[in-house]
Amino acid sequence: MNNPLILVTNDDGIGANGIRALVEVAKEFGETVVVAPDSPQSGMGHAITLKKPLRLKEVSIFENVKAFKCSGTPVDCVKIAVDVVLARKPDLCVSGINHGPNSSINVVYSGTMSAAMEAAIEGINSIGFSLLNFSANANMDTSKIVARKIIEQTLKNNLPQQKLINVNIPDVDVSLLQGFKICRQAKGRWTEEFDKRTDPFGRDYYWLTGRYDCEDKGQDTDIWALEHNYVSIVPVKHDLTEYEGLPFLNEHWQLDSL
Amino acid sequence: MNNPLILVTNDDGIGANGIRALVEVAKEFGETVVVAPDSPQSGMGHAITLKKPLRLKEVSIFENVKAFKCSGTPVDCVKIAVDVVLARKPDLCVSGINHGPNSSINVVYSGTMSAAMEAAIEGINSIGFSLLNFSANANMDTSKIVARKIIEQTLKNNLPQQKLINVNIPDVDVSLLQGFKICRQAKGRWTEEFDKRTDPFGRDYYWLTGRYDCEDKGQDTDIWALEHNYVSIVPVKHDLTEYEGLPFLNEHWQLDSL
Repeated sequence: MNNPLILVTNDDGIGANGIRALVEVAKEFGETVVVAPDSPQSGMGHAITLKKPLRLKEVSIFENVKAFKCSGTPVDCVKIAVDVVLARKPDLCVSGINHGPNSSINVVYSGTMSAAMEAAIEGINSIGFSLLNFSANANMDTSKIVARKIIEQTLKNNLPQQKLINVNIPDVDVSLLQGFKICRQAKGRWTEEFDKRTDPFGRDYYWLTGRYDCEDKGQDTDIWALEHNYVSIVPVKHDLTEYEGLPFLNEHWQLDSL
Repeated sequence: MNNPLILVTNDDGIGANGIRALVEVAKEFGETVVVAPDSPQSGMGHAITLKKPLRLKEVSIFENVKAFKCSGTPVDCVKIAVDVVLARKPDLCVSGINHGPNSSINVVYSGTMSAAMEAAIEGINSIGFSLLNFSANANMDTSKIVARKIIEQTLKNNLPQQKLINVNIPDVDVSLLQGFKICRQAKGRWTEEFDKRTDPFGRDYYWLTGRYDCEDKGQDTDIWALEHNYVSIVPVKHDLTEYEGLPFLNEHWQLDSL
């Protein structure tokens, strides 16, 4: 594709190191425009802003790249980018590089992946990138090499029908990377352990904390790939129908009368 | 099931008429506990609260039903209900009745459905209910009859493997209801039209507005069912893997080297 238009967004905010690394890679491939949240938005899932208006402000923080910070969620950023900022529909949307993993069930909570999914819903090829390191100062060298390869393959060989992949990157030197695995989302979930405290005024409050449990021993999952130092690539869909559930309901439920 | 434990939540807030209607139906079936947001949370998707603590307060607003309002998102409400409020895992979670539809792609943005999905992820049979009327004063008579039937069938005949259904209810008198349809999620999306304004200080701001476009002519979709005055029932999954996309990536992508 000749000089593709590439939208870059994230959920850690426009000032994060991860988006800076992704912008540096994206601009090697085409015209790059950034629209990202003006503050961290981790865990925002597919939230949109309905009850207050959005602010949008052009900023000069990336060399030779137009960039805008937006007061909304990651999904808001993609919507306003496509409708207000960009002159035409972008050829590709890349989201991240997230500081922390979005493998397994985390795809559901992730602002990074929701931004990418929003672009896919709008018919745009889209990639979410996440590094298995939560630190704001995480080393992005391996991630940049991986992102370059994935963007190259996407532009050259296209994405599956639903136009979205979830890429997670082990936090290792590139020399230790074992390669890439096309995977499914591992079955797993968070077990919450709310941390109950009392404020100076005697009122209780709760911090949401938790532990991730993988219930999946399969070797074709993203969790398995990452544990073995492979980059995981999961194709993701926004049609949430459980098709396998349709015959169950048709056979077992009695719905002939109210 | 003998006296099941039923968790009720929503995204319109604990004071909404929709949750009151749902509580009235749920308590006919078993021990009912409400944990719902203390303020409206529409469009929150699968957001969770990570950067501030949560408040939880018992309130007396439903007759003979324990109820708690929570300062978090709909998903937070389910997490804190299961981990802090309830003595054991509930047998069923019902979310809604939402004031407004959550058919087609709206399942992705909906706080109502995300709360229900969170319960399903935690292994709890779960149902999201939505009425095709946005009014805070919408008549809930038909919805209550529908919810009663759906809860009865769920307790009696179980749900599909991923433990979640999305139920949308036409805004008509029960005499006009054509029955129930087991459906797939219709393909469709929102086209945004941001409403740009200028504040009294000369700065621009944007309201997110949009128009829903259904791209799907199928007669097996939730949109078709609702347009023909059927209650739509879509089984929903939280494994977002696009399994059909795995062979595409394996065949077409070259990932042997970095």
